[in-house]
Amino acid sequence: MSEIQKVHTQRYLLTAAQCNAQRELAPAMLVQHIIEVSTEHADALGVGFRDLAANGTLWVLSRIAFEVKRYPRLGEEYSLSTWVEGYNRHFSERNFEICGGEGEVIGYARTIWVSIDMKTRRPANLSGFDFLKEVVCDKECPIEKQGKIHPIEPPQMCHPYRFPVSDIDVNRHVNSSRYVELIINQMDLETYDRFFVSRFEIEFRHEAHYDEQVEVCSTFAPEGDALITTILAPDRTICLARTLTLPRPAN
Amino acid sequence: MSEIQKVHTQRYLLTAAQCNAQRELAPAMLVQHIIEVSTEHADALGVGFRDLAANGTLWVLSRIAFEVKRYPRLGEEYSLSTWVEGYNRHFSERNFEICGGEGEVIGYARTIWVSIDMKTRRPANLSGFDFLKEVVCDKECPIEKQGKIHPIEPPQMCHPYRFPVSDIDVNRHVNSSRYVELIINQMDLETYDRFFVSRFEIEFRHEAHYDEQVEVCSTFAPEGDALITTILAPDRTICLARTLTLPRPAN
Repeated sequence: MSEIQKVHTQRYLLTAAQCNAQRELAPAMLVQHIIEVSTEHADALGVGFRDLAANGTLWVLSRIAFEVKRYPRLGEEYSLSTWVEGYNRHFSERNFEICGGEGEVIGYARTIWVSIDMKTRRPANLSGFDFLKEVVCDKECPIEKQGKIHPIEPPQMCHPYRFPVSDIDVNRHVNSSRYVELIINQMDLETYDRFFVSRFEIEFRHEAHYDEQVEVCSTFAPEGDALITTILAPDRTICLARTLTLPRPAN
Repeated sequence: MSEIQKVHTQRYLLTAAQCNAQRELAPAMLVQHIIEVSTEHADALGVGFRDLAANGTLWVLSRIAFEVKRYPRLGEEYSLSTWVEGYNRHFSERNFEICGGEGEVIGYARTIWVSIDMKTRRPANLSGFDFLKEVVCDKECPIEKQGKIHPIEPPQMCHPYRFPVSDIDVNRHVNSSRYVELIINQMDLETYDRFFVSRFEIEFRHEAHYDEQVEVCSTFAPEGDALITTILAPDRTICLARTLTLPRPAN
């Protein structure tokens, strides 16, 4: 166990083909990277999807919160580092630090991963993975933990959407980063030219599938300027999100 | 000029977060990589966007054709190699070889890049870049050149679509790989479980912009089983595509 890396780091280069309209890493792409480096680290630690599957269980991403000072920019080499903050019988808390081209910290993220039983889809027991206590790391993650998100009724805007082929991932569910795009798309391009998403929280409730029809509904919270968004299937809530923006610095 | 690399190669690893529902590299992601490695190579050769901009001109991707035996798979290390087949005063032909994890060739692609004048948007003259003749490479690209695509009337299926924030790229146009997704989405998930896109051709006619409304219209060609798709704005054709599929090998 002495060789394990408590902190796993992955480096990236933001190419033109990957940028959004503001010539930055898009929030959805950041979420994709968060999932990617989590998977890599869990595999390296012996608690990856394959290891849990041998135990009849699997990891399900339950929540993400991230906060950034700015996003990686076109042509910038940036990195994501991840570590396990803690775990108990049912879930694990995994954090992230995002660094820019000079190695400076530009953001942090927190995630919660729940282990569930493959057959019953009920919370499973992580107690067979007691060696996890040796990977727990006390590196600081100075952003607030994600809170419960409460939808606001009635929604100020609703957009219908049906999930096509290109939204479906390796597990035959809708790609988690695609939900983030749908939520980001609730505001217009001009808004993102003037503001950037400074904090984003998402709570995944139920998986959506190919060709399912949903409504993407948003309301600005009465206090502060958080946009609360829910993605709703006819019979269940797919996910809830809270988006906070800040004006872009003048330059 | 002796140090220039006539063939530029980029290696990739297909992570779970990047896979499609068939656990493969999606055609749209292949197109994104094709654009990415083209940009890298052109930059290295001194004919990148910045070099042309100094001359008041810019590269516009006009056509792509690719043909694959199979797509890179989940967890596979694959590569794209690119070289210039030829150029004349107005456009350049850039080809690609796609290799799988064992180094075996699994596909090829051809692209046509036109140089246009930034102001007039008319074809510009590449004659100031005569050193390009030294980078021309005679590596073989044994797939047919892309032909002109003729839309078939009336379309058998049409889907309306409006371009949201997440579809917009670094140049404030719709991302080229997003058109590929819209075209792929004309067929259903079950079709892609049984067939794979063996050859794909796309001709880019006009740029689309944020919040523009289009119709994605497709018809199966009467001979063969090519699906002909056009993305139509009210006043112009955005792009035309020809999609060929083959049954997946039984295993």
